[in-house]
Amino acid sequence: MNFRVVLAFLVLSLAAIFALVYVLVTRQGDQLVRCPSVLPRTQPWTRPDQSQLFADLSPEELTAVMSFLTQRLGSGLVDAAQARPSDNCVFSVELQLPPKAAALAHLDRGGPIPAREALAIVFFGAQPQPNVSELVVGPLPHPSYMRDVTVERHGGPIPYHRRPMLSVEFAQLWEHLKEVELPKAPLFLASVLNYNGSTLEPLHASPKGFRSGDRATWIALFHNISGLGVFLHPVGLELLLDHKALDPAEWTVQQVFYLGHYYTDLAQLEGEFKARRLEVIKVPLPTPEGASSLRSRVTPGSPPPFQFSTQSPQYTVQGNLVESPLWRFTFGHGVFSGLRIFDIRFKGERVAYEISVQETLTVYGANSPTAMMIRYLDSSFGLGANSRGLVRGVDCPYQATMVDLHILASTGAVQLLPGAVCIFEEVQGLPLRRHHNSIGSHFYSGLASSALVVRSVSSVGNYDYIWDFILYPNGALEGRVHATGYINTAFLSGGAESLLFGNRVGDRVLGTVHTHAFHFKLDLDVAGLKNWAVAEDVVFKPVAAPWSPEHRLQRPQLTRQVLSREDLAAFSWGRPLPRYLYLASNQTNAWSHQRGYRIQIHSPLGIHLPLESDMERALSWGRYQLAVTRRKEEESQSSSIYYQNDPWSPTKAFADFINNETLLGEDLVAWVTASFLHIPHAEDFPNTVTVGNRVGFLLRPYNFFDEDPSIFSPGSIYFERGQDAGECSVNPVACIPDLATCVPDLPPFSYQGF
Amino acid sequence: MNFRVVLAFLVLSLAAIFALVYVLVTRQGDQLVRCPSVLPRTQPWTRPDQSQLFADLSPEELTAVMSFLTQRLGSGLVDAAQARPSDNCVFSVELQLPPKAAALAHLDRGGPIPAREALAIVFFGAQPQPNVSELVVGPLPHPSYMRDVTVERHGGPIPYHRRPMLSVEFAQLWEHLKEVELPKAPLFLASVLNYNGSTLEPLHASPKGFRSGDRATWIALFHNISGLGVFLHPVGLELLLDHKALDPAEWTVQQVFYLGHYYTDLAQLEGEFKARRLEVIKVPLPTPEGASSLRSRVTPGSPPPFQFSTQSPQYTVQGNLVESPLWRFTFGHGVFSGLRIFDIRFKGERVAYEISVQETLTVYGANSPTAMMIRYLDSSFGLGANSRGLVRGVDCPYQATMVDLHILASTGAVQLLPGAVCIFEEVQGLPLRRHHNSIGSHFYSGLASSALVVRSVSSVGNYDYIWDFILYPNGALEGRVHATGYINTAFLSGGAESLLFGNRVGDRVLGTVHTHAFHFKLDLDVAGLKNWAVAEDVVFKPVAAPWSPEHRLQRPQLTRQVLSREDLAAFSWGRPLPRYLYLASNQTNAWSHQRGYRIQIHSPLGIHLPLESDMERALSWGRYQLAVTRRKEEESQSSSIYYQNDPWSPTKAFADFINNETLLGEDLVAWVTASFLHIPHAEDFPNTVTVGNRVGFLLRPYNFFDEDPSIFSPGSIYFERGQDAGECSVNPVACIPDLATCVPDLPPFSYQGF
Repeated sequence: MNFRVVLAFLVLSLAAIFALVYVLVTRQGDQLVRCPSVLPRTQPWTRPDQSQLFADLSPEELTAVMSFLTQRLGSGLVDAAQARPSDNCVFSVELQLPPKAAALAHLDRGGPIPAREALAIVFFGAQPQPNVSELVVGPLPHPSYMRDVTVERHGGPIPYHRRPMLSVEFAQLWEHLKEVELPKAPLFLASVLNYNGSTLEPLHASPKGFRSGDRATWIALFHNISGLGVFLHPVGLELLLDHKALDPAEWTVQQVFYLGHYYTDLAQLEGEFKARRLEVIKVPLPTPEGASSLRSRVTPGSPPPFQFSTQSPQYTVQGNLVESPLWRFTFGHGVFSGLRIFDIRFKGERVAYEISVQETLTVYGANSPTAMMIRYLDSSFGLGANSRGLVRGVDCPYQATMVDLHILASTGAVQLLPGAVCIFEEVQGLPLRRHHNSIGSHFYSGLASSALVVRSVSSVGNYDYIWDFILYPNGALEGRVHATGYINTAFLSGGAESLLFGNRVGDRVLGTVHTHAFHFKLDLDVAGLKNWAVAEDVVFKPVAAPWSPEHRLQRPQLTRQVLSREDLAAFSWGRPLPRYLYLASNQTNAWSHQRGYRIQIHSPLGIHLPLESDMERALSWGRYQLAVTRRKEEESQSSSIYYQNDPWSPTKAFADFINNETLLGEDLVAWVTASFLHIPHAEDFPNTVTVGNRVGFLLRPYNFFDEDPSIFSPGSIYFERGQDAGECSVNPVACIPDLATCVPDLPPFSYQGF
Repeated sequence: MNFRVVLAFLVLSLAAIFALVYVLVTRQGDQLVRCPSVLPRTQPWTRPDQSQLFADLSPEELTAVMSFLTQRLGSGLVDAAQARPSDNCVFSVELQLPPKAAALAHLDRGGPIPAREALAIVFFGAQPQPNVSELVVGPLPHPSYMRDVTVERHGGPIPYHRRPMLSVEFAQLWEHLKEVELPKAPLFLASVLNYNGSTLEPLHASPKGFRSGDRATWIALFHNISGLGVFLHPVGLELLLDHKALDPAEWTVQQVFYLGHYYTDLAQLEGEFKARRLEVIKVPLPTPEGASSLRSRVTPGSPPPFQFSTQSPQYTVQGNLVESPLWRFTFGHGVFSGLRIFDIRFKGERVAYEISVQETLTVYGANSPTAMMIRYLDSSFGLGANSRGLVRGVDCPYQATMVDLHILASTGAVQLLPGAVCIFEEVQGLPLRRHHNSIGSHFYSGLASSALVVRSVSSVGNYDYIWDFILYPNGALEGRVHATGYINTAFLSGGAESLLFGNRVGDRVLGTVHTHAFHFKLDLDVAGLKNWAVAEDVVFKPVAAPWSPEHRLQRPQLTRQVLSREDLAAFSWGRPLPRYLYLASNQTNAWSHQRGYRIQIHSPLGIHLPLESDMERALSWGRYQLAVTRRKEEESQSSSIYYQNDPWSPTKAFADFINNETLLGEDLVAWVTASFLHIPHAEDFPNTVTVGNRVGFLLRPYNFFDEDPSIFSPGSIYFERGQDAGECSVNPVACIPDLATCVPDLPPFSYQGF
């Protein structure tokens, strides 16, 4: 062998080895590093003891309750998904919340854990006296008893006509119309409304009549093209269907409305049309890519701006229990009432027992009968049951923790709502506090604002309500709702008079004026159960300057009033709220002030139905921007799912909670109404934006602590003139570039929300 | 050579080569990739034509004006940083805004660019009749003329006593106290207040007396320890110093206040003290790590949660011009009035000519003379001049674009405020709009919310006001302010009566009650200059159901009123705002509605000084939550820097802008007051948090467009049942994990803000 060849190999191999070593060594320096996974591990069905009291029923529990009910209620029980009005069926099953006393005895004093129970609502359509019954089933996970609580809770049996609509009842109404009624006007429907058997879709008004017992629904027809929201495509035809009879064969159309005129039925309309006596407006079918489409109008490509974190999250989610270094709470959903959180503790100390959504109300005005009838009480449709899977990166930050919901309502099977709740740390791009000091000495201090958020969205027909509970590092807790989605519309047939009820937003489309009102329950426990409601405000008083009495000052000074009775603490819209209103304990802080939490409402001036309205009492929570009442188990909810279809005879009107009982040293609940007027305008088309459509409340510590607790945040920044703020050891924010040297570990996108 | 050795080398070298190739190839796959730099390049002094009209003066321009003034005003001119009251000095130089007509002629009709001019305020203390003069200097960058505009703008010469305080005047007051007055009570100061020559610091009340011409300031003393804010450390001693005389030798202490009692001077106090007739409260010096410290209380380590973008930003900043695909505007700062933006265009169309901060007012109540005198008008101190360098990652998102300010005020030299403005894309973790559709067909559509933000922070003594203008992709524009920093306090000497003025927040510390009011100017140009102010609201009207007239409905319907005159459009606090108020054009949108922008105010019910107060007229903007006036050049500002020291004789009170002129088809300005009551509480110690202390306004398109313009956003998401939403081609959000495979390119932290 040639020595030079050997030498060449030798050199080459040494070079290669050096190169390999070099690459391996240098690769250490700029190697791809994955950031710690920012999705905290969730263990959906391992419920720690704390959350077991309030956690939604698991699929296994729901199934166990259904099996138990099927066994006990006998073979006459029909799956709600197929039930006829004359059947018996289980409408819903959800957690029966434990009594507060029992829950606190367990949580605070080591008492036994209250039995976990379910509340089942059963429609007894097949009884001689059809009715709705409420059954408490327990103990879970292996039920052995059930208890009828209907009389105890409602003062008597619940008349069957009060029942909420089953999903299948909507289908039955439409089936009836399609099969019995629409065939009466084939020429009109085909030639004027372009109806081909599938191009129309009904939307229903509620309530369904004018007095208890009525179940006659105004139904407006809208064009239905797959991929378009029907809500923007009214065609001008509306029908009043009486569906009170338990046998659909007896259902009848009582009135037909078309372009401002009423007809006895579609046959009459068809007759008029054929006789050319009917003035019509032909409505073309909307096009899939037309103005109402939400499809992208531009080449899709770059996603919207997004941000990610390279740090591990500061919170964990175990079952329904959320814990961060500062906060701990359990979240859940009422099938009807929606998002709620319980046993909310800041640094281990409970500040609230329950913060929950209670109800949403929309009241419409229009010339068309369907729209003018609408007073939707969305709990009846289910703010929880209508939660839908959330979309990472749009509905929530991409790295949010997504949690599934399981619902049993309107069907006998457990419904999985994948990723319908998201939990995340909100980085707000704003200081929580900051000060640049230049008097006395020069320094800077600040803390970036972040908050822990739990969110779900109720898609109730046209609207999407985004519910957030937000927990801040200073002990503040915010509740807010954004309204987005579609507006409701009516066919714009008339002239100027129609515009009394909204703005024109499309060719023949009127965006109909409506109110939005949201009711929240704030069961605060401020340093214990015994609380007082205190109002503070300021007045200007003229005062002679003490050092120069010939001169006068207008000086602000505080007013302070303990709101001793419920009537004093009920603030209807005409009565201004004191600028500070807080719930206080008899415990004091280091400075001898009663420890308190202030309630700050973020809402414009509300609007409520006139008291003369015969349905006002059922909605009477809407009278009050704020009301503080003594907490009672029997006053646990401000609304009822039975009011939507019978708002004329509420069994427990909220206004009756306010009966001048003492509030001094009692367990208090604050009830907050946030609301706004919505006059739809062109920019609500095709969807309403969240910007400006946000209302809610804020709970803020008010002498609850001895100082701002955020001072203990490890993220607090302080540096002074002469210090090198660029040094990571001086200023943790200066470490950020070093901490951001990894590539985020993002889960692939997926969506199972349909 | 041994063949086996050669073979071994051969094998080894081949292996090494393979390994090298392998490493190089595989390294391609997971190589560190830097994200595109997210800090848009700024070219600070290359002003495009559009921004030249409104951009702050450059350092070169400021210097040129100073040189010109020095030359023209002669050798008597003293640097303001050293000026005595009896000197002539240039107080401030800033941009003289061009008249709107000239600016629009240039911007819209190709007219000549108006001369760039400066407004210089000169203190003539050395004149026989000392006065303040306002001089317009131009053209820039090479001034050749100056024009005295004092009489034209103020109706006569500005009396010298109205002048704002120079920084040096504060120093002179303190020097006088330290050298002349404090030595009169050495024993008291040393033994009771622990005064060692540097441990006290003065804070000043304004206004300075009871009538025009007064310049006598109540000064409270606070303990001063380096690194602690003095504001939380009152010692109970306050002095009233008359400094009206131009010769400081003639300044005199008129009153001394200590623990509720008034004395003629410190000598009297010392005498009482020595005679042991004085009740005293000894106040220990605060400790650097004590309760008032903002230093971290826990081991610093992990910075607060932060987030990054891996995308290139969507906006650019060139000089003072900010451009995004949707928005374009020029930002700037009034030395006194603070942050402002001009020529604000959405998709090229101007929606506002000017949106600006005008004034902030705080009114205090207390038992101590200093605190009870305080009615701070912060423009007098300079909302722009007191902007300070912002901290990346705390005051603004880490990746924000930081822009320097240059200010000339209270000193003859240009002051650089490095990074005092930040501009960024705010990713809000919330949908701008979303809908989950399940009626008719199943689809989802949404758009993640993001907004373009320009921010600066005015650190005026104790408070830090965070000013934001926020521009949304739906055409909405928000203005908001957060208050943070220190509260003001008074020494808590008395008993229960002191608590009429606030809460105790420390051992001997009373957080003093006060109001915050912020005034904004909104010079909207809604589709042109000719605008109308329109109010819409809703009333419930009883109506017989047309299909069933025996039944009545309470139906909401719109009310609409054109506010034809200024008096009708001035909403003082007692008069509720209509729920919708917008400025409208005579142009119509596609649906025949007047194109409009709605003004939505986010503020609790305001509080204003009683009208009986003899200084109320100077603050009369505070009467109105909203007022719409005809725009006039001579009504360009709602407040004046001369009102702080002479609020008793305003030359152009805001209330006089409202003189019932027609608003029909005029160029309109809306003036908005946002305000809140602050009763300090324990959690304001050591700093007030921003949570809950936010007020502002929102401008929203109202039939301005034909539909929501965000529908054209490239980030819009739409997918339907059956589509694979995980496919990047279907759903741009699904591309996010692919786009986030790089390491953010973050600038190292640095701070030059002291």
